[in-house]
Amino acid sequence: MRLRNTNRLPRLHHLLIGLLLLGWPLQGAESGAPTDLRVNAQRLQERIDRLARIGESPQGVTRLAFTEADLSGRAYVTGLMQEAGLEIRVDEAGNLSGRLPGVLPGLAPIVLGSHIDTVPLAGAYDGVLGVMAAIECVLVLGENGIRTRHPLEVIVFANEEGGLTGSRALSGRLNARALDESSRSGMSVRQGIAALGGNADRISQAIRRPGEVKAFLELHIEQGGSLESEGTDIGIVEGFVGIRWWDVTVTGFANHAGTTPMNARRDALLAASRLVIAVNRAAKSLPGRQVATVGRIRAEPGAPNVIPGRVELSLELRDLAKPKLDRVFQEIRRRAQLIGMETDTEIEFNEIDIGVEPTLTDPNLQEVIRQTAEALDLSYARLPSGAAHDAQNMAHIAPAALIFVPSAGGISHSPQEYTKPRDVANGANLLLQTLIRLDRQAGP
Amino acid sequence: MRLRNTNRLPRLHHLLIGLLLLGWPLQGAESGAPTDLRVNAQRLQERIDRLARIGESPQGVTRLAFTEADLSGRAYVTGLMQEAGLEIRVDEAGNLSGRLPGVLPGLAPIVLGSHIDTVPLAGAYDGVLGVMAAIECVLVLGENGIRTRHPLEVIVFANEEGGLTGSRALSGRLNARALDESSRSGMSVRQGIAALGGNADRISQAIRRPGEVKAFLELHIEQGGSLESEGTDIGIVEGFVGIRWWDVTVTGFANHAGTTPMNARRDALLAASRLVIAVNRAAKSLPGRQVATVGRIRAEPGAPNVIPGRVELSLELRDLAKPKLDRVFQEIRRRAQLIGMETDTEIEFNEIDIGVEPTLTDPNLQEVIRQTAEALDLSYARLPSGAAHDAQNMAHIAPAALIFVPSAGGISHSPQEYTKPRDVANGANLLLQTLIRLDRQAGP
Repeated sequence: MRLRNTNRLPRLHHLLIGLLLLGWPLQGAESGAPTDLRVNAQRLQERIDRLARIGESPQGVTRLAFTEADLSGRAYVTGLMQEAGLEIRVDEAGNLSGRLPGVLPGLAPIVLGSHIDTVPLAGAYDGVLGVMAAIECVLVLGENGIRTRHPLEVIVFANEEGGLTGSRALSGRLNARALDESSRSGMSVRQGIAALGGNADRISQAIRRPGEVKAFLELHIEQGGSLESEGTDIGIVEGFVGIRWWDVTVTGFANHAGTTPMNARRDALLAASRLVIAVNRAAKSLPGRQVATVGRIRAEPGAPNVIPGRVELSLELRDLAKPKLDRVFQEIRRRAQLIGMETDTEIEFNEIDIGVEPTLTDPNLQEVIRQTAEALDLSYARLPSGAAHDAQNMAHIAPAALIFVPSAGGISHSPQEYTKPRDVANGANLLLQTLIRLDRQAGP
Repeated sequence: MRLRNTNRLPRLHHLLIGLLLLGWPLQGAESGAPTDLRVNAQRLQERIDRLARIGESPQGVTRLAFTEADLSGRAYVTGLMQEAGLEIRVDEAGNLSGRLPGVLPGLAPIVLGSHIDTVPLAGAYDGVLGVMAAIECVLVLGENGIRTRHPLEVIVFANEEGGLTGSRALSGRLNARALDESSRSGMSVRQGIAALGGNADRISQAIRRPGEVKAFLELHIEQGGSLESEGTDIGIVEGFVGIRWWDVTVTGFANHAGTTPMNARRDALLAASRLVIAVNRAAKSLPGRQVATVGRIRAEPGAPNVIPGRVELSLELRDLAKPKLDRVFQEIRRRAQLIGMETDTEIEFNEIDIGVEPTLTDPNLQEVIRQTAEALDLSYARLPSGAAHDAQNMAHIAPAALIFVPSAGGISHSPQEYTKPRDVANGANLLLQTLIRLDRQAGP
């Protein structure tokens, strides 16, 4: 599918005809020309691989936000953006932005983007795919002499892995306290933003208002295994799940493991174990894609020879629909009550407000992506995103969409993270063609 | 039941008759005299209460071995021993010993004892009861002019709560490395022994050889709740349970809690929870008093939003019979295999050699105690000791016995620890009468 430069002339010819026929500076679908435009898949892959060298060790890629590796990665990306003709700017939140004017005046930009910072010992694709594919789209358009009506903008969001700092700031959703939290780099977020060239004191100037962005598109690896296991090319994300967290405390009675007979125990860990199983069953007992997780557990006093008197554990629920979250929790609480009675323990749920409500992506954008996938003969599935992404924040100020490509084994945040070159190309071509279709949609 | 001094004269009279009749320096059962000798229960209770003042705070009694509080407690006990006519010695291991010669030459001593050090925030009875009751026995014998054939010795063992240091040393079972471990006092065990007046460099001189002790008797609160719940006065300990420890590792696959569907998880905590329940059921599935405990658990990576990929937990089994320990473990392993298969996880058991084999108490001593309890009209039950005690070490060099009295609610190592005055008196009287019977048994 690699587009050779020799293909460029016929396309320009078609474009000129389109322009003449419809009076638009850019036309394609009508002329048939840009619909068979494709990214340079080999170049895209090489750039993804090249960025993975920055911060690489035998154990994985570590490009923590705000660190030298992050800065080196951004310098590399800056060069690629400039080569694609983008005008570079770093906003007050440290977001790296490259912008290309559109042909029509006064239109809001179509924004593409993701992030290049990583967790410790990560892989090559998470975030990077979305950034590199966005730059490739701009580059291939330019190589083919295609100008869009809308301005195009590519954004590398700051500190995605450390709390989506950049996209939160840009969408006006950054809590001021978050600036003084420490990041994995050792710096505070505030210091880190400065290291990127931003200025946290004036961070409100990074905010984009509703209407200032025509649409936001993010391409990302799925991070789950559902596309791969079902053999589906593309995931069209319907929304970002809401997340609820509880601290759960199970209180029994700590006692001597040697002197307390089995039938005289009020073992908080035995009750907690039944609860972990109940959480799993409650989530599975309802139809749908909701998930429930106990990821943290601690038994007190925590000695091999003492029956635990108290266990603390975490409970997390995720789903696209708030009522479903409520129903799963009610079911868990019902089962917990029974366990408490049967084990002579008390089980308490304290909710931690983490403020992650379900966020839906734009239905019109979903439909454009769907039509584009069909046109490209790519199979697709609609699915929720269980993870947070920059698109989730962008959805609050603009029509936003997130496109998934398969991730081998559903593995991410790991050096084993892998997406096949064919899937990388599929995703980038879908991004390119969606962008072209959107650009053509009527109205600013 | 308090014995008044005015009662002394008739007893002495009976004794003289006994001596004349049988030509023994001391006779009682035959003369009928010492069988109705009783401890001064009020004095004993007052002394237990008085010792609890040393190291007391509103949160509990803290008399950690080797600390100032321990030294003050030992000074108080030393005074009581001297008052009872005991000759004081501190051995190389820091054991505080008080000795009274017997009437017949060349006999090995009958040794009574326990400890007065405590865990942090403990109660008034653990260890203390055995020491104070032993001193009371010697005192009441003296007050009644009764001399035993065998020497009597009361031992306050050093650092029981920190690893039974004193009784291990005395029975030649102290690992040299244990001397350099740090104790809760902040000192090493070696330094602590010096603080008590011992000398760890010459600790082998504290060893008593088999034959050097006629019998060892320890009175202790049960620390479990079985005597109380069954309304039994006295526990005759059949032996000390063997203890086996394992580090158990459950390996699944850590994954994103938001992006991994419920049916695609290899959740190590879900498997570990099933294992905790299986351990409980395996222990209960066989008849007997065996116990199985999971007291420690840790999930990795341990974040609320990550499915645990690995869980480490402890497994402890206790029983009087080695084959029973093996059978319970085999049953747990069988169930674990099934859980591993069903949850797509691996469960590994690594045994930690803690060297606690089952130790039986002396059958003859058990029988003497049983007969004595019957003579005193006390109800009794035979039971294992789930906890370690100094008697466990003494059993390796001498016939040893352990007598339990009820402990309210089975609570110990807590300021809520409580034994009724009546049970304190019952235990002390049983100790006294057992001692008198033993002293009369034929042979050196």
